[in-house]
Amino acid sequence: MAEEPNWFAEPPLRGFRQAYRVGDCLVREDTAFQSLEILQSEALGRMLVLNGAIQTTELDEFIYHEMLALVPLLTHPSPRKAAIVGGGDGGTLRRVVGCPTVEAAYQIELDPRVTQACLEHIPSVSAGAVSHPAARVVYGDGARFMADSAETFDVILIDSTDPIGPAEVLFSEGFYRDVFARLSSDGVMATQSGSPLLMHEELLLARQRMAAVFGEAHTYCACVPSYPGVLWSFTLCSKGRSPLDVPVSEIEARLASWGERPHYYTPALHSASFALPAFLRDSLAGPHPIDLFPA
Amino acid sequence: MAEEPNWFAEPPLRGFRQAYRVGDCLVREDTAFQSLEILQSEALGRMLVLNGAIQTTELDEFIYHEMLALVPLLTHPSPRKAAIVGGGDGGTLRRVVGCPTVEAAYQIELDPRVTQACLEHIPSVSAGAVSHPAARVVYGDGARFMADSAETFDVILIDSTDPIGPAEVLFSEGFYRDVFARLSSDGVMATQSGSPLLMHEELLLARQRMAAVFGEAHTYCACVPSYPGVLWSFTLCSKGRSPLDVPVSEIEARLASWGERPHYYTPALHSASFALPAFLRDSLAGPHPIDLFPA
Repeated sequence: MAEEPNWFAEPPLRGFRQAYRVGDCLVREDTAFQSLEILQSEALGRMLVLNGAIQTTELDEFIYHEMLALVPLLTHPSPRKAAIVGGGDGGTLRRVVGCPTVEAAYQIELDPRVTQACLEHIPSVSAGAVSHPAARVVYGDGARFMADSAETFDVILIDSTDPIGPAEVLFSEGFYRDVFARLSSDGVMATQSGSPLLMHEELLLARQRMAAVFGEAHTYCACVPSYPGVLWSFTLCSKGRSPLDVPVSEIEARLASWGERPHYYTPALHSASFALPAFLRDSLAGPHPIDLFPA
Repeated sequence: MAEEPNWFAEPPLRGFRQAYRVGDCLVREDTAFQSLEILQSEALGRMLVLNGAIQTTELDEFIYHEMLALVPLLTHPSPRKAAIVGGGDGGTLRRVVGCPTVEAAYQIELDPRVTQACLEHIPSVSAGAVSHPAARVVYGDGARFMADSAETFDVILIDSTDPIGPAEVLFSEGFYRDVFARLSSDGVMATQSGSPLLMHEELLLARQRMAAVFGEAHTYCACVPSYPGVLWSFTLCSKGRSPLDVPVSEIEARLASWGERPHYYTPALHSASFALPAFLRDSLAGPHPIDLFPA
């Protein structure tokens, strides 16, 4: 299925795959860390592909980036300092610097080529974020940054590749302990946590580790067309307010002064995104995980 | 992409397609109405395919069927009589006869072979619904049934194929007028209304027609892995209570006496499923539709 020259597909997961008709390949290189491609697709515009996996696309990037950034930013009552681990395409940074209370937003990306290639070929994703006065772009190992830094942050976002591969350390309990230590007393962490259908075991394991460190972990979902299985999960841990205790009226009032009007996130979706399907709610809560797609 | 013998894919929509690794083909025939296949897939078990489009699968059928049936059944305060237009696989009928107040549930399916083949090869989808004392299985034209019947129903569900093709009449204003006439004074209609991403124009048009007849139309979404784009829409019109005015406590109390515990629908998801992404909410409300996937 992957071999037709004008179609791109990730390797299948559990006998399922999504494929895109593509035109020009704008970038294809091996960086010091990974293979990097930028492809022009018919369905979703330009796509960033790392090690064969779609990371972001021009047309649906807003869904993932808003849900990763806005849910925790609005769970914290007034975030001033934020850090993003990964997120080299700049889409998360754009939403963080767009939050009016944020004075400093660190983006700690391992691979400078990701940021450079996205700035050149998919500039709409970051749309000026890197040059924003609050932006602090750092190239380096995000796990080491969290272990070594003496700074504290109100919001820490883990915008990584999937738990299998180079980003595995970003789903470890040791890493979550370092993040906990770097968060202020009412700090909030959110991480992308993979497909709840196709990477169910990894989500369960990551949640257990987060809950071991933070006491509880709140999983929420969004539909991201370019990610395998489309239904995508994020998990949020808070040292302060629960994400479910944020009044709609507060979100509405705060968004009114926001730099950019969201295209996916809404005040109603903030809580609604935590209303999980029964099978997923039970599976995440119970001792016997339920798998929709058989292994 | 479609030609590898052990993969099945629907024709691409806007340069996007989902593909499934498949094994045995259990049924492949031309009925009096359409081509019918039942395939064994690795990801989602057995699949019913009509005219090349996946209609239902063993493993994810519960998502579509629960969301089509339970949201309107629980919006109506006490449904006694229901009708399903289409739905030959019996999955919707199963959820309707499982509602304790329902005394009669009509299923008006055009093609008897769909029901027969599903009963033989994917019996778990209907799981005894057809033989339930409340079930009234009718083979015939659902649009004609709605036009000619003198009965009234509390809930009418449109469980059809997509708006392009043989089911086109089931998305027409004339059909919605007939449904309106067949509904009791607090009656509720719900219809599957296609992919909001890949069939956006069709959804807008169908909603306009429903709103012209009912005054307003409420669109809600669920993630159905086997449908193109995964994010799927349903639209509900009510002559009585709004679906957003159903208290969570009422849903919890009513579900406690239900025949079968839902696997997707939850009391919290009832309202949460109407919290649409901003781009979709704005597009459905406004004069200038926003298309995520370019045409």
